[in-house]
Amino acid sequence: MSFPVITFLSDYGLQDDFVGVCHAVIATICPEARVIDLSHGVPRQDVRAGALTLRGALPYLPVGVHLAVVDPDVGAQRRAVALRLRDGRILVGPDNGLLSLAAELGGGVVEAVDIAHSKFRLEPVAATFHGRDIFAPVAARLAAGVELAEAGEPCDPERLVRIELPRPELRGGELHAHALHVDRFGNVQLDVEHGDLADTGLKLGRAVQVQASLGAHRATIVRTFADVPQGDTLLYEDAQRRLAVAVNGGDAAQSLGISVGDELRISSA
Amino acid sequence: MSFPVITFLSDYGLQDDFVGVCHAVIATICPEARVIDLSHGVPRQDVRAGALTLRGALPYLPVGVHLAVVDPDVGAQRRAVALRLRDGRILVGPDNGLLSLAAELGGGVVEAVDIAHSKFRLEPVAATFHGRDIFAPVAARLAAGVELAEAGEPCDPERLVRIELPRPELRGGELHAHALHVDRFGNVQLDVEHGDLADTGLKLGRAVQVQASLGAHRATIVRTFADVPQGDTLLYEDAQRRLAVAVNGGDAAQSLGISVGDELRISSA
Amino acid sequence: MSFPVITFLSDYGLQDDFVGVCHAVIATICPEARVIDLSHGVPRQDVRAGALTLRGALPYLPVGVHLAVVDPDVGAQRRAVALRLRDGRILVGPDNGLLSLAAELGGGVVEAVDIAHSKFRLEPVAATFHGRDIFAPVAARLAAGVELAEAGEPCDPERLVRIELPRPELRGGELHAHALHVDRFGNVQLDVEHGDLADTGLKLGRAVQVQASLGAHRATIVRTFADVPQGDTLLYEDAQRRLAVAVNGGDAAQSLGISVGDELRISSA
Repeated sequence: MSFPVITFLSDYGLQDDFVGVCHAVIATICPEARVIDLSHGVPRQDVRAGALTLRGALPYLPVGVHLAVVDPDVGAQRRAVALRLRDGRILVGPDNGLLSLAAELGGGVVEAVDIAHSKFRLEPVAATFHGRDIFAPVAARLAAGVELAEAGEPCDPERLVRIELPRPELRGGELHAHALHVDRFGNVQLDVEHGDLADTGLKLGRAVQVQASLGAHRATIVRTFADVPQGDTLLYEDAQRRLAVAVNGGDAAQSLGISVGDELRISSA
Repeated sequence: MSFPVITFLSDYGLQDDFVGVCHAVIATICPEARVIDLSHGVPRQDVRAGALTLRGALPYLPVGVHLAVVDPDVGAQRRAVALRLRDGRILVGPDNGLLSLAAELGGGVVEAVDIAHSKFRLEPVAATFHGRDIFAPVAARLAAGVELAEAGEPCDPERLVRIELPRPELRGGELHAHALHVDRFGNVQLDVEHGDLADTGLKLGRAVQVQASLGAHRATIVRTFADVPQGDTLLYEDAQRRLAVAVNGGDAAQSLGISVGDELRISSA
Repeated sequence: MSFPVITFLSDYGLQDDFVGVCHAVIATICPEARVIDLSHGVPRQDVRAGALTLRGALPYLPVGVHLAVVDPDVGAQRRAVALRLRDGRILVGPDNGLLSLAAELGGGVVEAVDIAHSKFRLEPVAATFHGRDIFAPVAARLAAGVELAEAGEPCDPERLVRIELPRPELRGGELHAHALHVDRFGNVQLDVEHGDLADTGLKLGRAVQVQASLGAHRATIVRTFADVPQGDTLLYEDAQRRLAVAVNGGDAAQSLGISVGDELRISSA
């Protein structure tokens, strides 16, 4: 048995019925689609957080239609797009950078259409809920097998909005990193990839100092939480292979006073 | 391929396993049903909020069985019912008004049964969890194709509980409106429909004054959030075609101090 | 029509994409599986709360694969296991007691395998996200029909970790009970089963005194919330047939100052 798959990411939350209504619209148009809710807990209107989540999850998603809606400029001039990637995936969402990191990871955009006036829209289109009236119905049609070119007007992949990410810097022996994401457990993902550690002296087993808003903390670089005593701070390579800060059995974001966007300074202790 | 659809709305939240257990009961009885979670974030025991959500979503839901549970009087004298609407939909839930707005929108109730003692109940019935023991199993059987008359004792559609909604009033040039719903973004839906604006002078592009608990705020009537500068207050027709208050990039309920049920006074500025 | 069923319980929450990614992994490996989210709101790292939820729900779950992840020691020495129960169910999760109460209810473990090095793992295995890399893919393979013995190395069911639960005690005419769970409505489940009430004099209709952290409260033992006036405290047999404390239309945990683990003293008033 095989079903078309739609994954769905948004900042809609689950308190209201935004997500449920989009599911209902999809089920009406393409009843055989299997919809996987990637997350609807993206911080509201935080396009970058949504883009990072989509990119991080992409390698684990079945190839299909990937619907994403974090859309602070809904109803205004930003484009609504559907994109076909080199690896066969189709992305649907606002053209505000939300799709850009995943698009890059999927080999780049080989075909793009502007779906703002797609014939598959639900009419009338509410100016503030394109998820329901544009993105979900177009995603459902694409999952049902219509060609991308049918869904909208061709547009230039080169002119899609991209997102800038911070990069860590090594200055005076200190690694200046930035908090990209804080998860439910208070674990803090940094913008530091494996290669960024090459000349820093930071490696497995090393004791380090982490300077954040609530002062300096000693930490150890280890593989997993339980490698340090309960309550101790650790640095580890997280499940997306980025450096992250945690407290074993605790909440690092809270204990160290870290919010998304903060700069942290890491050095050998 | 075609599946029977059950939509599911409740105030159970997702912290506990109430929703998951109801899904499991449905899957046991009618494995082929597709269950769409409309929302489980209805404020707890707020029957009116649930009724408004169900009505607002109804036009977007595939015709099927619509299960709704917001049930402060569970186990007491209120009836448990299944209703067939003129438009073919079937509603299942407590008879406390929760279903009444949707029933009206669906053309009214053409057949009603009391399912408190339905032969499809799970025994023993817990006095405090009719979702699991009465509503979900009956909804699943109806989705599987049994006749409504099989599910319970006939009852009089005229005697079902209805919900009263506030109505806006125009007094001394001011529109007195009421907050019906606050969503995750802090956008405030009012009880003002398009027709209510006819003699008010309130129309697109107009500057207005909104009087709420935290004083008077200037706002503009526009189509969408981005039509005003970041941080400014706007009035707009929302996705359910009701007048709503928002702050572009902000949280109107918080900034203006609005809670559900509050009266707002709106006048030309 | 019949689908393999996987139920999924965790403390991952829905703010991040942990749950969504596990769904995606399952859909990739076993597209025909129906995944039922039992709950992802288990308090973080609270193994006992997860174990209680799984046991409480078990009788309502279709027989299938039951995936559960509350895993404070992820990546450390605790085993990862898949268990076949006497009643035919298969449990998958960390061997930290999380599965133990459900296993007992399902008639005990008849076959156990250690899946830490299962050939069905996703490589590389992240030290901190075994849900994605070990538990979900193994659960999906088992749902797809592979034999348990294929999924890992045999291990001794007798040596699986079990969970100790508190038990109520009758002392000097007072029942000393313990709070096992607080739900979204503030209802407090106690560790008191029907049989525990035999010699206590506590029965339907009786007025009692409940001593908790915020002092003594009068309550009545009734069938359901609405059997007492709005705002009054009640004791009742909850949907898992345990004694529970509630406030009609209110939040008992808050009003009486009860947290999970607290001792309550209950006596005739």
